[in-house]
Amino acid sequence: MSYERPSIQRLEAYVPGEQPADIDGVIKLNTNENPYPPAPAVMQAIQDLPPEALRRYPPPDAGSFRAAAAAVHGVRCDQVIATNGGDELLRLAVTVFCEPAGDRGHGGIGVTEPSYSLYSVLGAIANTPVTSICRTSDFDLPPDLANRWNAEGCRLGFIVNPHTPSGSLTPLATLHSLAEVFNGVLLVDEAYVDFASADALSLVRPDGEALDNVLLLRSLSKGYSLAGLRFGYGIGAAPLIAALDKARDSYNTDVLSQAVAVAAIQQPDGARVGWQRIRVQRKRLGDELGHRGYRVYPSQANFLLVEPPTRGSTAREIYEALRAKRILVRHFDSDRLRDTLRITIGTNRQHDSLLAVLDEVAGKY
Amino acid sequence: MSYERPSIQRLEAYVPGEQPADIDGVIKLNTNENPYPPAPAVMQAIQDLPPEALRRYPPPDAGSFRAAAAAVHGVRCDQVIATNGGDELLRLAVTVFCEPAGDRGHGGIGVTEPSYSLYSVLGAIANTPVTSICRTSDFDLPPDLANRWNAEGCRLGFIVNPHTPSGSLTPLATLHSLAEVFNGVLLVDEAYVDFASADALSLVRPDGEALDNVLLLRSLSKGYSLAGLRFGYGIGAAPLIAALDKARDSYNTDVLSQAVAVAAIQQPDGARVGWQRIRVQRKRLGDELGHRGYRVYPSQANFLLVEPPTRGSTAREIYEALRAKRILVRHFDSDRLRDTLRITIGTNRQHDSLLAVLDEVAGKY
Repeated sequence: MSYERPSIQRLEAYVPGEQPADIDGVIKLNTNENPYPPAPAVMQAIQDLPPEALRRYPPPDAGSFRAAAAAVHGVRCDQVIATNGGDELLRLAVTVFCEPAGDRGHGGIGVTEPSYSLYSVLGAIANTPVTSICRTSDFDLPPDLANRWNAEGCRLGFIVNPHTPSGSLTPLATLHSLAEVFNGVLLVDEAYVDFASADALSLVRPDGEALDNVLLLRSLSKGYSLAGLRFGYGIGAAPLIAALDKARDSYNTDVLSQAVAVAAIQQPDGARVGWQRIRVQRKRLGDELGHRGYRVYPSQANFLLVEPPTRGSTAREIYEALRAKRILVRHFDSDRLRDTLRITIGTNRQHDSLLAVLDEVAGKY
Repeated sequence: MSYERPSIQRLEAYVPGEQPADIDGVIKLNTNENPYPPAPAVMQAIQDLPPEALRRYPPPDAGSFRAAAAAVHGVRCDQVIATNGGDELLRLAVTVFCEPAGDRGHGGIGVTEPSYSLYSVLGAIANTPVTSICRTSDFDLPPDLANRWNAEGCRLGFIVNPHTPSGSLTPLATLHSLAEVFNGVLLVDEAYVDFASADALSLVRPDGEALDNVLLLRSLSKGYSLAGLRFGYGIGAAPLIAALDKARDSYNTDVLSQAVAVAAIQQPDGARVGWQRIRVQRKRLGDELGHRGYRVYPSQANFLLVEPPTRGSTAREIYEALRAKRILVRHFDSDRLRDTLRITIGTNRQHDSLLAVLDEVAGKY
């Protein structure tokens, strides 16, 4: 017999991008990892950790990290919560703001489509209704989004900005209007914001708009080359943070991660050099693919969504051909995205290998 | 206005034991940490981690750890799930096996009282009914427990074994009968099992009982001196593990923790020396307190529940007197436990300091 509840039996779990066990010789442009290693200060923080610190429980509230992040972002400590990767913040927000087993039209989450597919999976796990509204053909926000979410009784709306998988950036003014009209909490997932030209911090800063219903998600995975570490955080009004804090696991971030995260966030200038290099490489790769007849969506993230020329191989064929050469990119098998590939920005050398295979594939047909 | 749902507003969050920021000179016997540092091989695993490993996402399923744990415990890899501390396993079990917003009598959790108070908090967070049944005066399991949980429709029962806060060990045969009669999943929380004379592995091993509704929780926090790391795991029938796996965050354990956990679990002989020392110190501290007129509950864990002599200071007064001398023990302010203290087993030297203060307090009254 099955012991899990029926909705878990029916659940289609989130499927992360492929993480090959044998990484040697693989060019991995499928999960938006940063191509550069973390800063030396970060590795030093790991070396410096005394055995005593591992023996004891970690500071439950990650106080040192919260103070460091608050100083970097110009907010108060009680406006920051540290989480085991950004994913934990997403889950906590669903747990705290949405009604479990809520009826349609009551207490659910609002998403736009396409987007990070985990949002809907988290809704399904929590048994809360999910209202999904299609983005425009250019992947911009759908018109009248806040009212449409309100009509469905959504208590939590997710906007990933820059958007995945397109890389498009919703302007700050649009987010501001959305938050003002929406009745619930607007979670702006800024996992990719370090590669963009603007962020939404002013919506939550005490010296900015200080909106009481906006929660920003930040992650050290991409911008700080620390995907392996699992460290994210939320920034928002203190009452939102206090509510999330009640529902998190007692010691949700470990002492090593806390030490590393403090070292990372206190060195934004070091990371910034890498962000700029990625922007330069993003421009170059976009141009190269454009020359080859690809449609390249304008991106403010560390990836490009591209549509291969309609006369040549399909996106799926190109994905398979690259894979055979040990170059991994992402192909999403959904109606809206079937004709596209999402390619993480790598080094110029990785791009040269990618382009060489693409040219080879193009020559074949 | 408040954005969190009403049951979160009402929620009384779990309160962990005090973790003082300034630890210098503190004798910390309040949160069941191991007094000895982790094994040298563990610290070496941290030093050896290449920056590349931090840059990339970790293996999502912690495959190396699961294989190592399976080999150590004589189970199959698909019988093991790695979690961000044992607390994550507890939360996942509630998420997967219980009905959110279930009505009384349907789909809830069963606990015994007193016990690890997080169980009930997790039930409240998930909006699932909690059926709590009192333990006997000696903190043994209540009679007819499985039928009483069944009558309330419980889908998940929690037994911490050895028990906290008393340290008592429920015999294997009792757990076996409980699992056979109970209609739901029996989660045996073995966080303290490394200090006990027996464990419940045979209930889940393929060459043992292989029960389909038993889930064991293990933790590296106490037995392996790694409370700072946040690493736990579950062992059970493969279908239970698969169900839990669907609901966990995609990358729930980080690459550093995975490497450290593999190093730790592959060195059980190193840890075992420490377990034996703690058993010896437990015996000595129990004897010393017994001589002083304390009631000492027989313990198979790394702590002692003790009742001070009724004629002297109250437990609370002793707790405060110790605290003033920077010795932390645990006092639970509940009807059943108000007259007791829970003291973590430390080193003999820490015990000498503890006993000296207790004697001083006793002399005062």
